[in-house]
Amino acid sequence: MQTTQKTTAIERAKQVRLMVFDVDGVLTDGRLRYGSDGEILKTFHVLDGHGIKLLQQSGVKTAIISARQSPIVAKRAADLGISIVMQGIHDKRSAFETLLTETGLGPQDCGFMGDDVIDLPVMTRVAFAASVPNGHEEVRSRAHYVAQASGGLGAVREVCDFILRAQDNYQAAMAPYLT
Amino acid sequence: MQTTQKTTAIERAKQVRLMVFDVDGVLTDGRLRYGSDGEILKTFHVLDGHGIKLLQQSGVKTAIISARQSPIVAKRAADLGISIVMQGIHDKRSAFETLLTETGLGPQDCGFMGDDVIDLPVMTRVAFAASVPNGHEEVRSRAHYVAQASGGLGAVREVCDFILRAQDNYQAAMAPYLT
Amino acid sequence: MQTTQKTTAIERAKQVRLMVFDVDGVLTDGRLRYGSDGEILKTFHVLDGHGIKLLQQSGVKTAIISARQSPIVAKRAADLGISIVMQGIHDKRSAFETLLTETGLGPQDCGFMGDDVIDLPVMTRVAFAASVPNGHEEVRSRAHYVAQASGGLGAVREVCDFILRAQDNYQAAMAPYLT
Amino acid sequence: MQTTQKTTAIERAKQVRLMVFDVDGVLTDGRLRYGSDGEILKTFHVLDGHGIKLLQQSGVKTAIISARQSPIVAKRAADLGISIVMQGIHDKRSAFETLLTETGLGPQDCGFMGDDVIDLPVMTRVAFAASVPNGHEEVRSRAHYVAQASGGLGAVREVCDFILRAQDNYQAAMAPYLT
Repeated sequence: MQTTQKTTAIERAKQVRLMVFDVDGVLTDGRLRYGSDGEILKTFHVLDGHGIKLLQQSGVKTAIISARQSPIVAKRAADLGISIVMQGIHDKRSAFETLLTETGLGPQDCGFMGDDVIDLPVMTRVAFAASVPNGHEEVRSRAHYVAQASGGLGAVREVCDFILRAQDNYQAAMAPYLT
Repeated sequence: MQTTQKTTAIERAKQVRLMVFDVDGVLTDGRLRYGSDGEILKTFHVLDGHGIKLLQQSGVKTAIISARQSPIVAKRAADLGISIVMQGIHDKRSAFETLLTETGLGPQDCGFMGDDVIDLPVMTRVAFAASVPNGHEEVRSRAHYVAQASGGLGAVREVCDFILRAQDNYQAAMAPYLT
Repeated sequence: MQTTQKTTAIERAKQVRLMVFDVDGVLTDGRLRYGSDGEILKTFHVLDGHGIKLLQQSGVKTAIISARQSPIVAKRAADLGISIVMQGIHDKRSAFETLLTETGLGPQDCGFMGDDVIDLPVMTRVAFAASVPNGHEEVRSRAHYVAQASGGLGAVREVCDFILRAQDNYQAAMAPYLT
Repeated sequence: MQTTQKTTAIERAKQVRLMVFDVDGVLTDGRLRYGSDGEILKTFHVLDGHGIKLLQQSGVKTAIISARQSPIVAKRAADLGISIVMQGIHDKRSAFETLLTETGLGPQDCGFMGDDVIDLPVMTRVAFAASVPNGHEEVRSRAHYVAQASGGLGAVREVCDFILRAQDNYQAAMAPYLT
């Protein structure tokens, strides 16, 4: 990422009051583990979980909008204290509008992290759009920030740290661990 | 891939009306996850699933021919709307002949994506043969197109996009996400 | 790692009489595999297991301090003969103080291998702090030794071998296999 | 690998009438997937399975010697037609002696593929010793052939192909797929 682009990404991340995450490919590595009756497990990452908690503690709200539907996501979201979880969403733009109405926020207050074209209608509206190196090229090329770590392997943590830094909350978040 | 080879691959992909996929190593990463009673889960990828749906929507038929036999594959195929699923096939050439008879298509209308030598008798007959970087060298060296992404990690999506582009249907497939 | 740094790391590893390991991201690759009711499996590595046994046989004690809580960790620790297992620990510094009291050791007798900022309050106190290439940058930059292998893929074995070598016990540990 | 070394490895592979495989790290990627009651699944690879079958068809016998004990290995071995399966073996040298007695072969007729130091007492006796890039350095440095593919991701197939080629049986093995 060139310097100008990075500056812009920082300016954009500064505005984020609500960060929305896609699940498969972002909070996971995109693999769908099937048994005979369908998906039986999803693979999240411990670094991402702690990043989401630090972001929440800094005052940024978090939400999930996923095209697929799984009780596994509900469980992981509960463990992470993500209260807004929208699943089975094929029209992400419309779900995002509902989310804006419910939270009283505008798109300029939001960030979205996605990996596939279905995420683009939201990603092109929000202040800060993030993606993953293993995401679809149409998505990566339109993101303001592409993590170096892959989805499900720390990409979300990297984006949480990026927002914390952009909003000058990173040092405060680290303080309890560095004293 | 050199320019001439790529041009040829595009010309070949243009002809595909039925795209056939091998399962292990192509729709999955080739890992066989065993419990005490045999295989208990298979790992597909969310990017591939969306690619297959976009390809189907563009009018290309999809099918699966797999040497192994698993209810997991039947479930995944059902989720993706792949109606032709041939499993437990050790003679892929013969299964492919049956498929041609049933669909009324010729080998010149078909593509096949495989990773191991058992796939070669079909791959050497179809218009468009695709493979994966983690496939067997005898297969990679005979494929018209080898994906950059590995099997089970987006290789199928890459091939679906390649066919969509070759058939000038890519922009139309992307349109709903880019407006 | 520069030569001076490596020398220091060796000197530090020489002092270790108790080596403490974090679990997620160190003994595993950090992935959290969830079913509908939460985490259902953890992925350890066969190389790490043998390394821990060799380290124990050389006279170094081993322990686990983990922020998360799982019967899976208890089972793995039992298989490896790690008798001190502290789980559900959010304040690792305090747990480490308890560990010191129980063992009668001081921080200068201990090593700790961690991957996230929650591990720093202990890592900055012990004689020898080790980390993994996939760990958080704040942790990697403060570690005396960062393994080349990733967490859950042999990083622990590499650290065990490093300590064995630093304490001149490596040849003795290898002897049964090289005669 | 330098040319001389490779020539030697070919000469050595030519002698193999019985090829013995370690399991964890060789037929799998070395990851141990634990639930609360211990290991619940092992991950083999589809390419390896076909390689073992091709090797058997060429007249080379196959066997497994593993330090760990799991019904999963028994099931996978049965699926692959590996009739000699020795598990729970901590003294591999002694188990190998038993194997020689039972088969009436000498060490000069055998190959062994391993990844950890526990495999060395056998690997240093057989005609042909193979390993994996993710194996322990003491093992890799003593192997006659180190696969490019990692354990559990095609390393065994690569070694099977290497033996087939060394014994001039590769073309015959490929023939059914290339006509």
